[in-house]
Amino acid sequence: MLLRMSSLFLRTLRDDPADAEVPSHRLLVRAGYIRRAAPGGFSWLPLGFRVFRNVERIVREEMDRMGAQEVHFPSLLPKEPYEATGRWTEYGDNLFRLKDRRGVDHLLGPTHEEMFTLLVKDLYSSYKDLPLSLYQIQTKFRDEARPRAGLLRGREFTMKDSYSFDVDDAGLDRSYAAHRDAYIRIFDRLGLEYAIVSAMSGAMGGSRSEEFLHPTSIGEDTFVRSPGGYAANVEAVTTVVPDEIPLDGLPEAHVEDTPDTPTIDTLVAVARQLFPDAGYTAASTLKNVVVTLVHPDGTREPLVIGIPGNRDVEAKRLEAQLAPAEVEPFTEFDKHPALVKGYIGPQVLGSGSESTIRYLVDPRIVSGTRWITGANAPGKHVFDLVAGRDFTWDGVIEVAEVLAGDPAPDGSGPLELARGVEMGHIFQLGRKYAEALDLKVLDENGKLVTVTMGSYGIGVSRAVAAIAESTHDELGLVWPREVAPADVHVVATGKDAAIFEAAESLAQELVAAGLTVLYDDRPKVSPGVKFKDAELLGMPTIVTVGRGLAEGVLELRDRKTGEREEIPVDDAANRVLNAVRG
Amino acid sequence: MLLRMSSLFLRTLRDDPADAEVPSHRLLVRAGYIRRAAPGGFSWLPLGFRVFRNVERIVREEMDRMGAQEVHFPSLLPKEPYEATGRWTEYGDNLFRLKDRRGVDHLLGPTHEEMFTLLVKDLYSSYKDLPLSLYQIQTKFRDEARPRAGLLRGREFTMKDSYSFDVDDAGLDRSYAAHRDAYIRIFDRLGLEYAIVSAMSGAMGGSRSEEFLHPTSIGEDTFVRSPGGYAANVEAVTTVVPDEIPLDGLPEAHVEDTPDTPTIDTLVAVARQLFPDAGYTAASTLKNVVVTLVHPDGTREPLVIGIPGNRDVEAKRLEAQLAPAEVEPFTEFDKHPALVKGYIGPQVLGSGSESTIRYLVDPRIVSGTRWITGANAPGKHVFDLVAGRDFTWDGVIEVAEVLAGDPAPDGSGPLELARGVEMGHIFQLGRKYAEALDLKVLDENGKLVTVTMGSYGIGVSRAVAAIAESTHDELGLVWPREVAPADVHVVATGKDAAIFEAAESLAQELVAAGLTVLYDDRPKVSPGVKFKDAELLGMPTIVTVGRGLAEGVLELRDRKTGEREEIPVDDAANRVLNAVRG
Repeated sequence: MLLRMSSLFLRTLRDDPADAEVPSHRLLVRAGYIRRAAPGGFSWLPLGFRVFRNVERIVREEMDRMGAQEVHFPSLLPKEPYEATGRWTEYGDNLFRLKDRRGVDHLLGPTHEEMFTLLVKDLYSSYKDLPLSLYQIQTKFRDEARPRAGLLRGREFTMKDSYSFDVDDAGLDRSYAAHRDAYIRIFDRLGLEYAIVSAMSGAMGGSRSEEFLHPTSIGEDTFVRSPGGYAANVEAVTTVVPDEIPLDGLPEAHVEDTPDTPTIDTLVAVARQLFPDAGYTAASTLKNVVVTLVHPDGTREPLVIGIPGNRDVEAKRLEAQLAPAEVEPFTEFDKHPALVKGYIGPQVLGSGSESTIRYLVDPRIVSGTRWITGANAPGKHVFDLVAGRDFTWDGVIEVAEVLAGDPAPDGSGPLELARGVEMGHIFQLGRKYAEALDLKVLDENGKLVTVTMGSYGIGVSRAVAAIAESTHDELGLVWPREVAPADVHVVATGKDAAIFEAAESLAQELVAAGLTVLYDDRPKVSPGVKFKDAELLGMPTIVTVGRGLAEGVLELRDRKTGEREEIPVDDAANRVLNAVRG
Repeated sequence: MLLRMSSLFLRTLRDDPADAEVPSHRLLVRAGYIRRAAPGGFSWLPLGFRVFRNVERIVREEMDRMGAQEVHFPSLLPKEPYEATGRWTEYGDNLFRLKDRRGVDHLLGPTHEEMFTLLVKDLYSSYKDLPLSLYQIQTKFRDEARPRAGLLRGREFTMKDSYSFDVDDAGLDRSYAAHRDAYIRIFDRLGLEYAIVSAMSGAMGGSRSEEFLHPTSIGEDTFVRSPGGYAANVEAVTTVVPDEIPLDGLPEAHVEDTPDTPTIDTLVAVARQLFPDAGYTAASTLKNVVVTLVHPDGTREPLVIGIPGNRDVEAKRLEAQLAPAEVEPFTEFDKHPALVKGYIGPQVLGSGSESTIRYLVDPRIVSGTRWITGANAPGKHVFDLVAGRDFTWDGVIEVAEVLAGDPAPDGSGPLELARGVEMGHIFQLGRKYAEALDLKVLDENGKLVTVTMGSYGIGVSRAVAAIAESTHDELGLVWPREVAPADVHVVATGKDAAIFEAAESLAQELVAAGLTVLYDDRPKVSPGVKFKDAELLGMPTIVTVGRGLAEGVLELRDRKTGEREEIPVDDAANRVLNAVRG
């Protein structure tokens, strides 16, 4: 295919768009690949859509190869199935809802678990029909609170979503593994660096779950990795529980005056003044955080969470751990006199205590550990308060933030924190959807069993941005070969008719050999502008036909390495083909 | 590609779906190509999606070949551009409207004229940038009052829509012609019979417009054609105007008592009693139809339309001719004493008359024609009322229904009426959208000129249904080769392992040669069921590996013609390839 820049629908921009926050967004707009059409909605221009379709093709090939079958659902969906699973309300403001002319409720599909479940229920009825994996590459809609970063977080985007159906857990494990392998092949082919991290199940409910994160400083997700290869979403990191300490011989607890110490920092400062040799740090303190739990039936309950004072409670983990109850800030100190704001201590907490206020603790609070914590009176703290001796708790909860240097749960070394963009997510849904929508099949013994499902997603439009983000340089885009909108960029410079003839002839020869060629045939554009555009547009191979033609040579340039070499015009097509085909 | 029926996501149905009105819908559901997912919304199953993608590929190839460039817009669009052109309200209930979490109005795109116009305005500014044709293949949404006929009229469907941009009318003519040629190639490749009919511009406003209609009895559009090749949408047929007749020597008008003749039928019966030899028919009468015109500023005006009594006013033509005014039934006889219900005659009409009521007539009412019409008094009609002598009119209007046998406007013979489904529409929009959204470019003289546009659509999902509709037979679907989901259907019958081995080996050989093979490898399904499924599914070539294998022969069958021949197993792959490649 020959793309002539003289007629290509393209206008490169010298200036960054005002609303672009990240390099991929900036460059994709400047290079004329995408254009903002609506808040969180982008139009693909011709070059951009070619990259998009290349990514889509790779995803499709690998899904087909793993034996998944392609189907396609509508985007405009009825409310009922999403009510049956609870997602109609759970999705909250993120769901686009609308009514048709008769006033009937509909939604724009954010993902299609319900619809796939119903389709399989509609057609299949026996264990012999399974396993089954279905996928679609489809437009998704989510009413993001803050669409940002161009294609990375929009309100309308393209996803490959697939779903597996198995009769038992072993089958689900196999389907999950097959998707995992396919995803590895896809991201390898896309040339995208990725970390496979253990993930929380979040709002979906279910068991095993991993994310494919592309590590990048502009990412919205934080994950951890260890030198030994452990990687996880921060929400999925489990704490290494310290050994219990024998209670015998531990010092007695003692209350101290600690005026004006409502924060950890002020408390540590006073503790150091009182006991200069103890080596107290924020980690020596026990912080008791109060929240209000709102249960699905509307009842409200105070909950206190005890964590080491050097850590904050992570909101996402807290929500996930306490779902389906919702968490609200606690304000009702007047109703609960046991809770002394700023000086709460665990001695008065726990469902067995007089206050009956539920008390959960971080896994680091094990029997025999000693803490500085509130003495339940203003301006007073208790020191050497021993867990399991001086206070007890109702349970353990993993809600503390992960800190760099924390040990990996598998013993593979200290964790480092990194940021990434979620490119894919594989997820064992289990029987949640099949139960809600009654998807059962007959097993070998003629007994009805509930099907177990997996759900697997890849952001297709997001992948385009992530590739741009990870491969660009200061001059512009640098496309990997498999996704580049053209294999070669032929640039004709100057005004000499012979140059344009030679360039045209080379371009035609390359097209005949099966390449897609972007040909800069613009007659009145200066060489400087053409070179700048070639760098900005980012085809992997650039051939310049210019002054050298008089001596029988063209310039072949590798966009990524910057390497240039002169090649003889007579052998140019072969040399270019070799460069392209590696 | 090898599609094994043992694992293919497919369940053929013996019974017709209850809600299927037309054969394509019935068969596509029964054969497991599509499945209803929502009112007016269908899911594509694996075989159906393969047909869909074949159609999409053909459309894309031909659009690329004509030099149109592919882009892709969001479906979720802001209100403002559609308000600027008036379509936000003009579309009425057909538009899906919704609000986002901030309460901002959005719509689901029915077509994208506004967005394309704004995109070109955004990037281009000079006549040198034009001509330009852009297209997308995209999901469209329309809140149809009555979704019906499966894929033929849904609320969510896929369209190829393209738009041309030119600096002058001659350019628009060229862009229009290029699209017309591309559409001819597309429908030829799809194997779809079509008539190119002149069409009214309808709600779009503009000039030249043609529809590609697929003639079928289940079509919703009526069109006309003549033996000499004229074809038009009924709304676009122009009346052949009869010659004027000299007024000299025509008989005088005379009023007759015609009690109880408020309808044409009763009037003709009485006229025949009064003048048995005159040969009066309904066509001898002049019917005067009163409507109320509601102008955009809200003012209301009575309008009388005179047409021969053997024809009705066609509502669609009337609306189109009188737009932007709207038409309402006339009820205010008490305010207009000149109008005697059931006995209105033109003698008292016309803006020059005492009543000042505007009077428009059918083109057949020319000077010298004689009519039986109302005498403006109950129970009385006037005979031999001569146009141009006894009454005048304010103008001519084309709103009468077309009748079979009417002469074609180009003299190519009598018209016949036929029904069809609209497969494509090409349309000279002119400057309507460019003016509303201020799309101007600098011309050769540095002067700003408004761009002129064309809009061109093909229903991609609808084409799948139309092909199914036009090619099926009583046994099932019969796909043309270019769109079939597989090239060959290999059917292994019986229980003999040797049969399955031979069938598998043939299937693999054909796949290696580049074909897509549907292989019925189901081990425990009877030959009868397999043969029925093969007919229902409709691959163009069917190869049966069965009992004949013992004698070294397979059966090769052409689904369309029903021809069968025995082929030697040793040469089977070659013979099949020849059959497929023609």
